[in-house]
Amino acid sequence: MRLSRYFLPILKENPKEAEIVSHRFMLRSGMVRQNSQGIYTWLPLGKRVLDKVNAIIREEQNRSGAIELLMPTMQSADLWIESGRYEAYGKEMLRITDRQERAMLFGPTNEEVITDIFRSYVRSYKQLPLNLYHIQWKFRDEIRPRFGTMRSREFMMKDAYSFDLTREGAEHSYKKMFTAYLRTFDRLGLRAIPMRADTGPIGGDLSHEFIILAETGESEVFCHRDFVNFDIPPEDVDFDSAEAMQDVFAKWTSVYAATDEMHDAAVFDALPEGERLSARGIEVGHIFYFGTKYSEPLNAKVQGPDGKEHTVHMGSYGIGPTRLVPAIIEASHDENGIIWPRSVAPFETIIVNMKAGDAACDGVAERLYEALTNAGQDVLYDDTDERAGAKFATADLIGAPFQIIVGPRGVANGEVEVKDRKTGARETMTVEAALARVA
Amino acid sequence: MRLSRYFLPILKENPKEAEIVSHRFMLRSGMVRQNSQGIYTWLPLGKRVLDKVNAIIREEQNRSGAIELLMPTMQSADLWIESGRYEAYGKEMLRITDRQERAMLFGPTNEEVITDIFRSYVRSYKQLPLNLYHIQWKFRDEIRPRFGTMRSREFMMKDAYSFDLTREGAEHSYKKMFTAYLRTFDRLGLRAIPMRADTGPIGGDLSHEFIILAETGESEVFCHRDFVNFDIPPEDVDFDSAEAMQDVFAKWTSVYAATDEMHDAAVFDALPEGERLSARGIEVGHIFYFGTKYSEPLNAKVQGPDGKEHTVHMGSYGIGPTRLVPAIIEASHDENGIIWPRSVAPFETIIVNMKAGDAACDGVAERLYEALTNAGQDVLYDDTDERAGAKFATADLIGAPFQIIVGPRGVANGEVEVKDRKTGARETMTVEAALARVA
Repeated sequence: MRLSRYFLPILKENPKEAEIVSHRFMLRSGMVRQNSQGIYTWLPLGKRVLDKVNAIIREEQNRSGAIELLMPTMQSADLWIESGRYEAYGKEMLRITDRQERAMLFGPTNEEVITDIFRSYVRSYKQLPLNLYHIQWKFRDEIRPRFGTMRSREFMMKDAYSFDLTREGAEHSYKKMFTAYLRTFDRLGLRAIPMRADTGPIGGDLSHEFIILAETGESEVFCHRDFVNFDIPPEDVDFDSAEAMQDVFAKWTSVYAATDEMHDAAVFDALPEGERLSARGIEVGHIFYFGTKYSEPLNAKVQGPDGKEHTVHMGSYGIGPTRLVPAIIEASHDENGIIWPRSVAPFETIIVNMKAGDAACDGVAERLYEALTNAGQDVLYDDTDERAGAKFATADLIGAPFQIIVGPRGVANGEVEVKDRKTGARETMTVEAALARVA
Repeated sequence: MRLSRYFLPILKENPKEAEIVSHRFMLRSGMVRQNSQGIYTWLPLGKRVLDKVNAIIREEQNRSGAIELLMPTMQSADLWIESGRYEAYGKEMLRITDRQERAMLFGPTNEEVITDIFRSYVRSYKQLPLNLYHIQWKFRDEIRPRFGTMRSREFMMKDAYSFDLTREGAEHSYKKMFTAYLRTFDRLGLRAIPMRADTGPIGGDLSHEFIILAETGESEVFCHRDFVNFDIPPEDVDFDSAEAMQDVFAKWTSVYAATDEMHDAAVFDALPEGERLSARGIEVGHIFYFGTKYSEPLNAKVQGPDGKEHTVHMGSYGIGPTRLVPAIIEASHDENGIIWPRSVAPFETIIVNMKAGDAACDGVAERLYEALTNAGQDVLYDDTDERAGAKFATADLIGAPFQIIVGPRGVANGEVEVKDRKTGARETMTVEAALARVA
């Protein structure tokens, strides 16, 4: 992408409303814009990151055997009355009346809708296990939306729903998602720690939050230091094997980890001091096993091998992509801007032409741009006539892993400079070496 | 994808509510499910098609220079009051009050929001031309939603918005989208004919609808037969060249074409009979140039080369992906089911194992499945123990371009059968030849 033809509205000033660093950098780098309180547009740069985050989530959901569909944002109130949650959900639910005076709502979550879909089609245990997910906009009318897209009213959620004949099967399904989440967050460059959690309005008796550690975290968390070095399940882990899933689950729940709500100070304090880790955390995922809480009132049953009807056991599994983006920034930035993990970087390389209009600089920059684009890289080519200082500031702010700096002095020697955004190291090398370095 | 692990809820009976063939086949093949009146879930098979349609739309938008972002579904009423459309839009607009008693709405279109974004960031003509688009859910509370996702209340729309300093520039932008649309519909396997159109509630003085011909079309259309053979602009057409765009536009507007509303019977009837084509049509895209209709009330101005402020000239350009899917089916099906163009087929090949559980058949089917999957094809492998007749019916219904039929008799000779869904031709050949045929 040539910057001269892109839409990248960089803000020079720090926006006053931004209380945390991710919100500040997302506004300054032109990733998002607030349209109304807690409602955001994802500008082109932000949209690129969001797409990459979603692609990784999707790959890991699919790998675990979950199947993607797409439910609507607008739901009928009827199903929520049937499940008993319509009144209980309170003011966070955005209630809407359509032109036929029917009670509708903007879905804050989808347990009811998916259970209705399930009961309409599935009759036999032979069609189980089943895990259906979608990535769709949700709305929760928070009284105090804040921190940009970290806690917004309209937000994107990947929500998966598992259906099993038995509790045992449902626990296998739960551990599949547990494993998929470990892999997902790792690929996003995050170390997420699963912590036993309260089940809140979703209900159920087994639940884990996945928490990343960050100074700006909304809650205090407590865990064993060992988590920092636990191995992530490999790509070829056998999701179909209950034993393999149990192994992952056992390992990752073998030592102490708790959010503030579930914290047991006596147990934690009994750990040797060097093994204790207490910090601020950001929740980036939440998984639930809730048995028949929705299948019972909604009458979702299948015929079992015994020929009898069985109410299915369910779980639900959420990740918020529009929350993950700022969480990644909280975990990876410096005073100059964002430091993207390569897997989700909006651009992998930025080519900074220090003297646009100079035939020699343009020639080298164009050659780099063409070579990297042809190699399938996402490249931003700063071909504008801004002064060099502003270009460097922008490149640091938007945080591509590599910058290739093309200036007249280097070009005269057939050289360019490659800057590693993370370490800040700059190195002069030939064009060919630069291409190899960022490949 | 192995069918035994997929979620493909095939209906045996014809759903009573389906009045048109696309709606019938989309329900029967488990592509969509109605959740409430005019509100649908895209089940896994439908989601795959929708994704492929969107990918093609996106590629052609990007090729033309348009830039993707993502605006929210919920909008504040304030901007619509500012533009003067809040009252005018009537009951089709879903009006919502949030917990703070603020007037909100579920966006039926985005002229106001995008103009607000534009005016917040763009100050100079040097940043123009600019074309920003998104693919997002919209809601129009139609009094009579029908024909499945062809006319639903919650629907997906790709809407692009162009900004130019002058009318001349805006016309160039308009012709870019005109050209991009011709390419988009062609890649979706459709012959779409641009027809001068009424501008309706969007306003403006230049507008074309893109209409495909189909017996079930909602309106009567009239055009010159030559349209059927006009060449589609090539991939490397120069979008930056006003002349190249004018050439495309001139060609595709050189002969008569009109919807019912704009029809001039005298002109049409003057054509030789053999050149007249009158038929039913389905609108699949609509583009508008509306000058300063929104930029004027919303005060979207840039500084021109003359140092003065100029109100920008705008256009908007819509395609409905959730409408395109049934439109493609209307244009391509037979009595047994859908016949997908390869570019948007949910699966390119279906492997039908006629005797699942038979070691020889399983071996050959697995080999085919693995080879095609590794080659990057979207393959559905029917490994279930349904009887052969039901498997054939399903394969025809869901309409993958190719079926590879693996049966015990053929396998004994080292052979399988390849069926071309469109022609119905079946041919016996070796496994290697089958792989080459569907590649």
